[in-house]
Amino acid sequence: MEASLPDPEVGRLLVSCPDGPGIVAAISGFLLARGANIVQSDQQTTDPVGGRFFLRIVFRMPELTTWLPALEEEFGAEVAERFGMSFRMRAASVPTRVALFVSRYDHCLLDLLWRWRRGELPIDVVQVVSNHPDLQKEVATFDVPYAHIPVTRDTKPEAERQQAELLDGRVDLVVLARYMQVLTGGFLERIGVPAINIHHSFLPAFAGAGPYEQAKTRGVKLVGATAHYVTEDLDEGPIIEQDVARISHRDRVADITRRGADVERTVLARAVRWHCEDRVLLDGHSTIVF
Amino acid sequence: MEASLPDPEVGRLLVSCPDGPGIVAAISGFLLARGANIVQSDQQTTDPVGGRFFLRIVFRMPELTTWLPALEEEFGAEVAERFGMSFRMRAASVPTRVALFVSRYDHCLLDLLWRWRRGELPIDVVQVVSNHPDLQKEVATFDVPYAHIPVTRDTKPEAERQQAELLDGRVDLVVLARYMQVLTGGFLERIGVPAINIHHSFLPAFAGAGPYEQAKTRGVKLVGATAHYVTEDLDEGPIIEQDVARISHRDRVADITRRGADVERTVLARAVRWHCEDRVLLDGHSTIVF
Amino acid sequence: MEASLPDPEVGRLLVSCPDGPGIVAAISGFLLARGANIVQSDQQTTDPVGGRFFLRIVFRMPELTTWLPALEEEFGAEVAERFGMSFRMRAASVPTRVALFVSRYDHCLLDLLWRWRRGELPIDVVQVVSNHPDLQKEVATFDVPYAHIPVTRDTKPEAERQQAELLDGRVDLVVLARYMQVLTGGFLERIGVPAINIHHSFLPAFAGAGPYEQAKTRGVKLVGATAHYVTEDLDEGPIIEQDVARISHRDRVADITRRGADVERTVLARAVRWHCEDRVLLDGHSTIVF
Amino acid sequence: MEASLPDPEVGRLLVSCPDGPGIVAAISGFLLARGANIVQSDQQTTDPVGGRFFLRIVFRMPELTTWLPALEEEFGAEVAERFGMSFRMRAASVPTRVALFVSRYDHCLLDLLWRWRRGELPIDVVQVVSNHPDLQKEVATFDVPYAHIPVTRDTKPEAERQQAELLDGRVDLVVLARYMQVLTGGFLERIGVPAINIHHSFLPAFAGAGPYEQAKTRGVKLVGATAHYVTEDLDEGPIIEQDVARISHRDRVADITRRGADVERTVLARAVRWHCEDRVLLDGHSTIVF
Repeated sequence: MEASLPDPEVGRLLVSCPDGPGIVAAISGFLLARGANIVQSDQQTTDPVGGRFFLRIVFRMPELTTWLPALEEEFGAEVAERFGMSFRMRAASVPTRVALFVSRYDHCLLDLLWRWRRGELPIDVVQVVSNHPDLQKEVATFDVPYAHIPVTRDTKPEAERQQAELLDGRVDLVVLARYMQVLTGGFLERIGVPAINIHHSFLPAFAGAGPYEQAKTRGVKLVGATAHYVTEDLDEGPIIEQDVARISHRDRVADITRRGADVERTVLARAVRWHCEDRVLLDGHSTIVF
Repeated sequence: MEASLPDPEVGRLLVSCPDGPGIVAAISGFLLARGANIVQSDQQTTDPVGGRFFLRIVFRMPELTTWLPALEEEFGAEVAERFGMSFRMRAASVPTRVALFVSRYDHCLLDLLWRWRRGELPIDVVQVVSNHPDLQKEVATFDVPYAHIPVTRDTKPEAERQQAELLDGRVDLVVLARYMQVLTGGFLERIGVPAINIHHSFLPAFAGAGPYEQAKTRGVKLVGATAHYVTEDLDEGPIIEQDVARISHRDRVADITRRGADVERTVLARAVRWHCEDRVLLDGHSTIVF
Repeated sequence: MEASLPDPEVGRLLVSCPDGPGIVAAISGFLLARGANIVQSDQQTTDPVGGRFFLRIVFRMPELTTWLPALEEEFGAEVAERFGMSFRMRAASVPTRVALFVSRYDHCLLDLLWRWRRGELPIDVVQVVSNHPDLQKEVATFDVPYAHIPVTRDTKPEAERQQAELLDGRVDLVVLARYMQVLTGGFLERIGVPAINIHHSFLPAFAGAGPYEQAKTRGVKLVGATAHYVTEDLDEGPIIEQDVARISHRDRVADITRRGADVERTVLARAVRWHCEDRVLLDGHSTIVF
Repeated sequence: MEASLPDPEVGRLLVSCPDGPGIVAAISGFLLARGANIVQSDQQTTDPVGGRFFLRIVFRMPELTTWLPALEEEFGAEVAERFGMSFRMRAASVPTRVALFVSRYDHCLLDLLWRWRRGELPIDVVQVVSNHPDLQKEVATFDVPYAHIPVTRDTKPEAERQQAELLDGRVDLVVLARYMQVLTGGFLERIGVPAINIHHSFLPAFAGAGPYEQAKTRGVKLVGATAHYVTEDLDEGPIIEQDVARISHRDRVADITRRGADVERTVLARAVRWHCEDRVLLDGHSTIVF
């Protein structure tokens, strides 16, 4: 169960652009000319006519970390501009810097911290932010700083200002690990990195308070969870991953809640892993998960 | 894969009543005194204080079919009345008489007919009812009468009258196998037997037309189906069974629809089986599935 | 996510005996006469003719913990003897005392300790036993004593003697949370409590060393885990729970191992929970899981 | 639920070869020069050093069916030879010609015939072959010729000769839909097309007769099925797909068998679909399923 050491020669390239002829030829030609060998690639065009082109390439290149800045610049100039591409190029060996936001429920937070410590996630947790002090001691055992920033309706703007200042330039991803506050559009824009959220889900959906109680009342047989990118419309952003667990009439609300929590942490850990492995591309309000 | 022959000595008893002391003792004493041996039983009380008692017993009794009417009457007089019970007593060897309602999609209908012919379901399909003529020929190969009763907004009351007349006293269960018309409360009352419906479900839910298109747009990763008893509020009745299938960005709307159809027929077949094996009890708006 | 406090009035009765008339009536009469109310019960007879009877009853009784010893004795004398029953009667509020055995892989151990601390499991972890010192520090954060007892071929008898002495009378269950030593029949007999083991499983099975490598070579699409009671034949005892996770050609052996580990800890936690909730009865080499 | 019409401009290219620099560039350059637009592609290299390269490309090209033979030849001469490639190039609109072999169990056979008729599978069933006459009438309703060729130990060589003669040049794939005879290596070589088989699978495996009975005895909680390519070692060929279904102590051997049959037909249908969509590549004894 040793975590495999990240290979410093492995890079990843993510591309999205309007579809058209010659894109793959241009990209593969570019990489070939630099001695980069394509190890894995996935490509998808959403619609044969007028669709969008999505690509993820894993490549190997000697001394990648030295050459990466130049490679990125050249790719931008020689390939990306020509096809109107958005792209991202990264060394796989560089962990994604993550801030975890949490309120009082600890299951998602601890699962991520634990997997991180075991070397299961290609991340570096640099900060925990909470509107409650409850989990401070627990987090301390992982040697991660814990910022307790209370949030009330009145103090929210000031709290978000503090949060943004604390994270400024230090993180590549924010994960809401059961953080019970809505992030404003202004905050999201200011931190300028993606945020992933997890929330419970049901077939059918239950709006409002006490969803597990409502699920029990209706005799629901599956509880689920959805991990998605955060947009200004809470719980409405592009979906990264979902899963469910089976429940029965024997399960009390406490049991349903526990099983829901199990699904939540599994789904969130998967979504964070996939994001940090550069597997997720946005396609409008949808996602491509390679 | 031979269907096992139903055993004429096997009976099933379903009971629900307000909880209180002595119920199990009274029921088991009643059965013991008649030489009926309990083969399997499941019991659940929803709340230790002021809750409801639910019981399903499978028992064996020589010459059951001969004694069943008397047994039922005696149970009503000696046990059920005393505890304020609703109960149902049936010989397991008697198949449930079923009418299948369908519109144009054939996947649920054919799956049920096929499983029935293979001896997988303890049912007898006595009638197919459709508001379209499309599936007539297909159904004919199963030797089941097909009633084509068109329904428009204006003719609905008359159509429901015809349907009810056709089924009057001939069926124990109505299954809506993708029947795209809402049944009125008046119709449900008149036929006087339960009805089971199947519909697609998502995490989160998508209201309105084109749910599979909406799911695609949102990047949903699971499609599901819910089988439930029909109440006047369509798609809101007590849930019997649910399941999901995984989809990905590669799936076009046609693929998602196909996978959704696969889940629908599986879930509906399971719900029908469980109902006909007397496994499902109503608990308010919820179900107990033993 | 608070753990619900165990209710001191709730008891559980497990019964197995040769089937015959009057068993349920006798048991329910016994409980009724003592003012015990049956909250939930599951009963199964394996074969209508000459089969075996299995029963699990959850009941409520005022001042249960005071009366339990007398209740147990009276049940033995008045009911159990008459029908040749094996039975177990317990207060649900008394946690099962557990010893965890582990070698070097920490995932199953930590998952159990973590769930225990969160109040998710009705257990009390009283001892960790390991043939390696590696996990000592980790376990210390849970305030559980860690006994490092090395095992070699030569020292095994002496090591098992030490282990048995250490546990003598202190535990109700031994859990092998990835303990890579075979327990001898003599040891199992001496400790006199059940032991649960977890091991990886595949469709088809792969014998010998490096099962994940073998699975990769064969292109296996699912990895699984099986939790079972330990018998002298390692990995051949009665199965309590199994589950699988999906893998693909993209997964390297390290990925497959990680996903296998995830299934192992989930399946083991479920098996331990079910055992400690008195849900598992032995039926020869098989199990009944109510 | 209409089957989408196959698009005559869509082609698929499958490639496998030793890995090395410039492969993707060469292939994409070749397609670009012919006006073929890459719609989807998946590429995998098994090992960064000395590994094998696997690629599946879906492309669109006007008048594909006219140009395909020339395209294939040119690709062979200009690209494939240079990199030592095995490759396959096909028009997606041309259905795979399939022969179904069956003995007495009908569930896999009927599921495939049914999905084919519904337009769910890109195949053309040209022949059913059976060593028993039982399913003749059933198959007739699908307008597929049924060849009853009995097989005994003595007549096996002659039977295989008849089968091979019957199929000679008429099929692209043989599917063993619960055909209980082992195909000899000589037969496989003579027909010269791949064969897919389905068989039940368990965690752990049960060798010998009555696997479902053995599973029951051991208290198994999951039954599964494995679809694989047929090699001379029966049930040992490269795995295409696997799945499982959950069972419990309540399921009798007949129930377990039924659930096993459900998994078998689902898994086989998926494997056949993926093969016929050119998603499956052989990697030694393993498979890449794109």
